[in-house]
Amino acid sequence: MEAEASDSVLDWWESGEFPEQLVPKMGEMGFLGANLPTEYGASGVSNVAYGLIMYELERIDSGFRSFASVQGALVMYPIYRYGSEEQKRTYLPQLAAGQMIGCFGLTEHDGGSDPGAMKTRARRDGESYILNGVKMWITNGNIADIAIIWAKDDDDVVRGFVVPTDTPGFQANHIKHKMSMRASVTSELVMDEVRIPASQMLPETRGLSAPLSCLTQARYGIAWGALGALEAVYEDALSFSQHRSTFDKPIASRQLVQTKLVDMVTDHTNGLLLAWRLGVLKDAGTMHHTQVSMAKRKNVRVALNAARSAREILGGSGITLEHPTIRHMLNLETVDTYEGTHDVHTLILGRDITGHNALV
Amino acid sequence: MEAEASDSVLDWWESGEFPEQLVPKMGEMGFLGANLPTEYGASGVSNVAYGLIMYELERIDSGFRSFASVQGALVMYPIYRYGSEEQKRTYLPQLAAGQMIGCFGLTEHDGGSDPGAMKTRARRDGESYILNGVKMWITNGNIADIAIIWAKDDDDVVRGFVVPTDTPGFQANHIKHKMSMRASVTSELVMDEVRIPASQMLPETRGLSAPLSCLTQARYGIAWGALGALEAVYEDALSFSQHRSTFDKPIASRQLVQTKLVDMVTDHTNGLLLAWRLGVLKDAGTMHHTQVSMAKRKNVRVALNAARSAREILGGSGITLEHPTIRHMLNLETVDTYEGTHDVHTLILGRDITGHNALV
Amino acid sequence: MEAEASDSVLDWWESGEFPEQLVPKMGEMGFLGANLPTEYGASGVSNVAYGLIMYELERIDSGFRSFASVQGALVMYPIYRYGSEEQKRTYLPQLAAGQMIGCFGLTEHDGGSDPGAMKTRARRDGESYILNGVKMWITNGNIADIAIIWAKDDDDVVRGFVVPTDTPGFQANHIKHKMSMRASVTSELVMDEVRIPASQMLPETRGLSAPLSCLTQARYGIAWGALGALEAVYEDALSFSQHRSTFDKPIASRQLVQTKLVDMVTDHTNGLLLAWRLGVLKDAGTMHHTQVSMAKRKNVRVALNAARSAREILGGSGITLEHPTIRHMLNLETVDTYEGTHDVHTLILGRDITGHNALV
Amino acid sequence: MEAEASDSVLDWWESGEFPEQLVPKMGEMGFLGANLPTEYGASGVSNVAYGLIMYELERIDSGFRSFASVQGALVMYPIYRYGSEEQKRTYLPQLAAGQMIGCFGLTEHDGGSDPGAMKTRARRDGESYILNGVKMWITNGNIADIAIIWAKDDDDVVRGFVVPTDTPGFQANHIKHKMSMRASVTSELVMDEVRIPASQMLPETRGLSAPLSCLTQARYGIAWGALGALEAVYEDALSFSQHRSTFDKPIASRQLVQTKLVDMVTDHTNGLLLAWRLGVLKDAGTMHHTQVSMAKRKNVRVALNAARSAREILGGSGITLEHPTIRHMLNLETVDTYEGTHDVHTLILGRDITGHNALV
Repeated sequence: MEAEASDSVLDWWESGEFPEQLVPKMGEMGFLGANLPTEYGASGVSNVAYGLIMYELERIDSGFRSFASVQGALVMYPIYRYGSEEQKRTYLPQLAAGQMIGCFGLTEHDGGSDPGAMKTRARRDGESYILNGVKMWITNGNIADIAIIWAKDDDDVVRGFVVPTDTPGFQANHIKHKMSMRASVTSELVMDEVRIPASQMLPETRGLSAPLSCLTQARYGIAWGALGALEAVYEDALSFSQHRSTFDKPIASRQLVQTKLVDMVTDHTNGLLLAWRLGVLKDAGTMHHTQVSMAKRKNVRVALNAARSAREILGGSGITLEHPTIRHMLNLETVDTYEGTHDVHTLILGRDITGHNALV
Repeated sequence: MEAEASDSVLDWWESGEFPEQLVPKMGEMGFLGANLPTEYGASGVSNVAYGLIMYELERIDSGFRSFASVQGALVMYPIYRYGSEEQKRTYLPQLAAGQMIGCFGLTEHDGGSDPGAMKTRARRDGESYILNGVKMWITNGNIADIAIIWAKDDDDVVRGFVVPTDTPGFQANHIKHKMSMRASVTSELVMDEVRIPASQMLPETRGLSAPLSCLTQARYGIAWGALGALEAVYEDALSFSQHRSTFDKPIASRQLVQTKLVDMVTDHTNGLLLAWRLGVLKDAGTMHHTQVSMAKRKNVRVALNAARSAREILGGSGITLEHPTIRHMLNLETVDTYEGTHDVHTLILGRDITGHNALV
Repeated sequence: MEAEASDSVLDWWESGEFPEQLVPKMGEMGFLGANLPTEYGASGVSNVAYGLIMYELERIDSGFRSFASVQGALVMYPIYRYGSEEQKRTYLPQLAAGQMIGCFGLTEHDGGSDPGAMKTRARRDGESYILNGVKMWITNGNIADIAIIWAKDDDDVVRGFVVPTDTPGFQANHIKHKMSMRASVTSELVMDEVRIPASQMLPETRGLSAPLSCLTQARYGIAWGALGALEAVYEDALSFSQHRSTFDKPIASRQLVQTKLVDMVTDHTNGLLLAWRLGVLKDAGTMHHTQVSMAKRKNVRVALNAARSAREILGGSGITLEHPTIRHMLNLETVDTYEGTHDVHTLILGRDITGHNALV
Repeated sequence: MEAEASDSVLDWWESGEFPEQLVPKMGEMGFLGANLPTEYGASGVSNVAYGLIMYELERIDSGFRSFASVQGALVMYPIYRYGSEEQKRTYLPQLAAGQMIGCFGLTEHDGGSDPGAMKTRARRDGESYILNGVKMWITNGNIADIAIIWAKDDDDVVRGFVVPTDTPGFQANHIKHKMSMRASVTSELVMDEVRIPASQMLPETRGLSAPLSCLTQARYGIAWGALGALEAVYEDALSFSQHRSTFDKPIASRQLVQTKLVDMVTDHTNGLLLAWRLGVLKDAGTMHHTQVSMAKRKNVRVALNAARSAREILGGSGITLEHPTIRHMLNLETVDTYEGTHDVHTLILGRDITGHNALV
């Protein structure tokens, strides 16, 4: 799969397509929800191994890692953790196999930094819920078979629902003009009187802590994934600098180039240690969500900085998609923003260490 | 023109087209080679006024400013400064009117930082020169009527030639997959036994100082233009931050947003003072090329940083072309690179202040 | 004076003394309150010329510029602007001549960022005011003949008072263990039932706008002064790098050294243009206090960064006072903090451009 | 010891004294050369435990850690690794016990970045060597009983010698006017015809690799130690920000303060993981010296940046020695410089990853 994906990623990215045909292959290779138990069809690998999968996927393209993050951490995980036994048996094996695609609808038009401001409603009507609202920036939205939708019920409590995307009133609109994550589908989800059986509610969800716990899973994977992108841009810049000469010397021999490469490799090393340590804690069941905030915030930012430096080293060659660097640089703009922006994680950590909430 | 250009720039950029139809309008408005004397059809405005034209063009898109920079500073200027009276009368009025388009061929495949490594040759053959070589990253290449080509003659002296692009053996190849300056044409020029009359040589060119003097003119305009892009992204981010709220307060009220905006506005102020001072010196005939290096290097870099900050403030909205910011951010990657990379200008300045050449 | 001051500044700084003997010389040279009118004994020079005086004083040591800033902008200016004719005639000529030294008491123990929280009181008692309170971080406190003290009156209105420092109940305590501005006197002022005639109140002061207007004057001088320090560290680093060799080449020839020097010289140029433009506006009477905030914030920070870079270039030699750099680096820590910290000016500017006050 | 040292460090630092009386206590506690084998009197702890000792010493003051680094890594280590059995038995137990103090003389007046330019000579004369030369920036120089001196022999081969400091012709001159590492002794060593028995040569030293291997040991400890300083300044700034209020809210609740604290705590976490991983590799015998360069370069720089941020948070309080921050900030200027400057380690790493030596 790596060879196929690496060869074609430029085309997919340039034309703005997600290669859906890779999904069943990811399933076969055990990449989807890989850290969930084997009981429902997942691979049951350790969290460190799961992190390495995210790393390798993002080394090719953040869009592939994003697909897997959504499928595993934001769709399979909430069903596994908050779903009924029947929901687990119905959905998890197909999702793990890549025979079914999911998406996760939490963020709305006013941005994701304040999820409590959610406007989407789930009105109870006999044995049904009727959903109304609009979700924004939804990865996989247009290709999903099911959507995990978060909405406030009649008691203003946030609940999660498994919504088949072919339910009447459910519509996904492709977000166009993206200059980032172009090999990934991003959508607006519009729900207008979408009626689903009450049994589609995830019974253990109650309040914002449920979707936030999913974000913690996804952010964990991002902390690994971003380093895959960092490796890709570092390798690109290093290789280029060895082959491009000025004044008869390869630019790799220049101090101003070396200082950029050295910062990249140092950040990569630090980043891997941080991600790995997080994985050890997660495997031990002692990982705290603020630790994930630290790793997501830092690892993505250093990867973004590395991509910018790598693009600079590449000179004119750095502006075309024939080198992977600018693609990663652009993808990382999204990665730095989604699942909690850099500044949001700053303030989550700031609250943790000072006891003062500076988000509000 | 501004309204038309602003409305359509997204489409042109996304589809990767330069709007050739705007060129005669730029000519009518006196934007092309505007700081050259009126004698040959140019506007004859001051260098400060010329800088403001560059600013306003780049505020819309760096591609428009790049077009005008090439036409004025890299095509009209060398003809004006190094050309024969006949060459001036033949070309300048048409170029000033936007009835003819030019391009400038100096950089080759190994990059632009070491122009002395030039491989393109101009072989004398009776009353002709025969050009052979390949030029890379040539703005306007595929739409140009004439190309200013720099080549080494039989004595290894660099000379400039005015080459009609329909001369047999001259071929322009579009550079594809660009993620920057997409509303601008960039080309590879391949010359295979291109025979031109000896009278097409610019008689006063002799050595690298001639093309370098053209770059000084172009860089002067860039030092102004980049600040137009900076204004555009600052206005975008400021406006967005006033309208987007989290926790019931506009994000413009948040310290972490304000610090980004304040850095932008400070850099904009400093940048304008630097560009303006340069213009005063240029009008007085006392501007030194290292002063231009300082302004190009600094103003472009602060504009690029501002664009990155603005994109961050925009959150998810920052990744689509519906906001101008990511387009400017990407354009500025080219602007930071061409006409002397950031690092090259560092070392030009470093040589000037220390007396030691660290480029080689 | 420059030779004397330059020769001895190391000793004064190391031993923590302010050379009071220089004050009358500064007076003779017309440095004190130089931009005030000649009518009361000052030099009456333009604000640009005044800025250059601040620049030259701080090129030697920030302590000398701080002395002159306090004397001119924080003592002479409020008397000139808010004082009675009699107060002007009594104090200004002596202050201008350096025959009398003043200090300015606004900041209290909880820091200077929130002057409205002032606790010092001025109780009216017949034809007297009785002052009680403690002022902190007061430049010139222990050497001053008079102090401009800001206090709230019985109506909770902030008023300014000219307090002779030999008034009973007035005590100045030297602040020790300073590692910055060691050639300057910094004091705590304790006022315990200090009784002064009511005629010592500056009659036109009414509210915080009065002391804030003084700060604007002082900050204007700082915006110039910091660049004097920047010049000093740049010259030190440049000279050192020309003479220190590694591997048989002067380190001035190394890219990593040149990039630091080039950043310094660029910041110096930008800083001077900003300060000069501010001076032109001030001379024209159109300067706005937020423009001063921009210049104080930016010029001091770039000077501090330059000092840190210069110290790095100096290697081991950079840690001793035999080179001026570490002294300037340490002084600039104070300059970055006083008269509005970097962050406070960020938020003053942020409020100005967004309309939202993020200070509170 | 911690209580005593913490209480008095301000006095020692301010007056510029190293508290020699602590040395035997360090010996008793097993801090000196702690990772060397117990056979010669050292503690024989793991390298991770040794790193933690360095951390805790530098948390108090870099001067204490520097003393221990020199004694252990630069004096005991070379005797242990390159010395004869007799030399080991003679010196190591006393050095481990803190009954004897050593220093390390490698750097000369032209700086430490190019040790191959060494001018100090060791002339063979019968059964003696006669040393001539000057060493600079020598920690412990004036308090040392023995000095490890590196000099070129008659074959131009670098050799190490154990030189008793009371040998005729050996003189140590205190370096004055230091604004960094003031609780540490730094000296110039002048050797004028210093005659020592040939048996004082460390027999296994032969070339620069010997002293460089000692530097690797010392740098390993620095990579840990700097994080102790980082902890100290973080704790200082965090505590201050909790207690200092503006506009009735503790500054710890402000976004601009939290972002500084969060960067510190993230860098501390990353730094510890890097140091710990290095320790694991060192214990396993697989640590490479470029890995040490990475950790020394990065950990010291983040500590220095943290100290600068902490000082900024402290406002006016940050300029006095009553808070530990400015002392650590100043010490770290030395730590960033010695044992390979930041830039030297950049280029050591750059050479390792590119294969090109950009130092020369």
